[in-house]
Amino acid sequence: MVNQKNFIFVRVKIIIVMKTYIYEIEMKVRDYECDLQGVVNNANYQHYFEHARHEFLESAGANFGELHNQGIDAMVARVEIDYKISLISGDRFIIKINIAREGAKLVFFQDLYRLSDHKLCAKGRVESICVKNGRLTRGELFDEIFAEYL
Amino acid sequence: MVNQKNFIFVRVKIIIVMKTYIYEIEMKVRDYECDLQGVVNNANYQHYFEHARHEFLESAGANFGELHNQGIDAMVARVEIDYKISLISGDRFIIKINIAREGAKLVFFQDLYRLSDHKLCAKGRVESICVKNGRLTRGELFDEIFAEYL
Amino acid sequence: MVNQKNFIFVRVKIIIVMKTYIYEIEMKVRDYECDLQGVVNNANYQHYFEHARHEFLESAGANFGELHNQGIDAMVARVEIDYKISLISGDRFIIKINIAREGAKLVFFQDLYRLSDHKLCAKGRVESICVKNGRLTRGELFDEIFAEYL
Amino acid sequence: MVNQKNFIFVRVKIIIVMKTYIYEIEMKVRDYECDLQGVVNNANYQHYFEHARHEFLESAGANFGELHNQGIDAMVARVEIDYKISLISGDRFIIKINIAREGAKLVFFQDLYRLSDHKLCAKGRVESICVKNGRLTRGELFDEIFAEYL
Repeated sequence: MVNQKNFIFVRVKIIIVMKTYIYEIEMKVRDYECDLQGVVNNANYQHYFEHARHEFLESAGANFGELHNQGIDAMVARVEIDYKISLISGDRFIIKINIAREGAKLVFFQDLYRLSDHKLCAKGRVESICVKNGRLTRGELFDEIFAEYL
Repeated sequence: MVNQKNFIFVRVKIIIVMKTYIYEIEMKVRDYECDLQGVVNNANYQHYFEHARHEFLESAGANFGELHNQGIDAMVARVEIDYKISLISGDRFIIKINIAREGAKLVFFQDLYRLSDHKLCAKGRVESICVKNGRLTRGELFDEIFAEYL
Repeated sequence: MVNQKNFIFVRVKIIIVMKTYIYEIEMKVRDYECDLQGVVNNANYQHYFEHARHEFLESAGANFGELHNQGIDAMVARVEIDYKISLISGDRFIIKINIAREGAKLVFFQDLYRLSDHKLCAKGRVESICVKNGRLTRGELFDEIFAEYL
Repeated sequence: MVNQKNFIFVRVKIIIVMKTYIYEIEMKVRDYECDLQGVVNNANYQHYFEHARHEFLESAGANFGELHNQGIDAMVARVEIDYKISLISGDRFIIKINIAREGAKLVFFQDLYRLSDHKLCAKGRVESICVKNGRLTRGELFDEIFAEYL
């Protein structure tokens, strides 16, 4: 007879601290990216993050523009950015990337560090999905392209 | 016999539905805002949201550029955007805003609806802080400017 | 004695004053369009001019994005802009357009006036060509769309 | 007696071919710079040219943002761009610069070459002026900064 009391159900949520990054790219502030406050406009961090992801994609052998021409579109479903230190004219910075699969989504963790003092300036989390000929996929393409990182 | 009454676990998640918006602005997609996928680039939604906030600010009697010249800078501390439907060339849309104070922060809830069918295309949550002469304030300015809404 | 009548040099500079504009659109500076000098970044005037042309196109019954989907692309071959007065945060302005055919090209004359004092802020001249399925056309499409203005 | 027939008037237009460039910078297309036609949006060439000028300025020991903080603003008075070949996603390119003084103006000649085949994609001519504390200067600063090139 089964003693139900013994069935202790433990739900553990494991939080993996990602210590390592799998890709990084160095960039430099362009003056037209700064706004009237004299700092890089918030929206431009999204541009920086997008460019970093696409360069990462290219390093893995795929080009965003060519994928689009083949009917395959990686789209952003959600973005979160924490702004910590404002970049200004002349600043060099480095974006470091890690990724994780969450169901049909590929999540990019993107941290932006100022090069002069290695301080964390912005922290991004970007959920992307993959659409093929207008239909949402289960993200198989992400597995293929980023096989070695997932 | 187990008294089941003792094991009723009540998990209440209170969802506050914000029924009312306090400001809205209509805009139209400009073609240069679309990228090679033929849809408005993700970063441009931040531009739309920023413009909507600044127009809201102006409707309340303050100008973002003039505030900066007085040494007062409203800065974005965190942004979250959920992308639901992609805007394309020719689309008209409306951004509806609500606000809430959270400590020193002023949080903007910004929903973007396509005008043709009133579908929700993007949902933004933007935390802003107020810096005066380079120092973080407790957000008193937000209270003054948006007194009637807070 | 020298007969001065013989030395009258007549220099005639014929200035063709375009008295009429055929289209105009009102816009307002968005703060993210200003750069660290606190004025609208020069490149953004091209954005303004492009948007004005595309809205003019739409008023004539054609949409730039749809034309592209049909394999028809209006492309800019040359742009000239004279910058006279810098637009700043809060400025409203109006872009007035005239057009002329020059061979296969359609030339747009685009003048940007500040609304507060009707001063001319920027003067653009944009040569556009029409490409169909990757091949340069003689611009027949321009004649069709803008028949009433050419 | 003068035979007037012998007065052959020869009008010579001397075209100075600038064989040498004094500065060059390599860049790469970022996908968000492409528009719905799948090519880099025309306005972005102005961004590229601006960034190239500012990097050239920095190579000569001055920073655009710092100059602004000192009350010195280099402003664009006129821009001309000829578009020859469209840049697309993935393209690398190089911008080569030469300069000349014309009165109070400093003129930048900026040619943009695609790296894959060294074809000229765009040709820019940018007239800049120097404003100090809101007043137009005779461009002495240009002479100081770019002494070795003028």
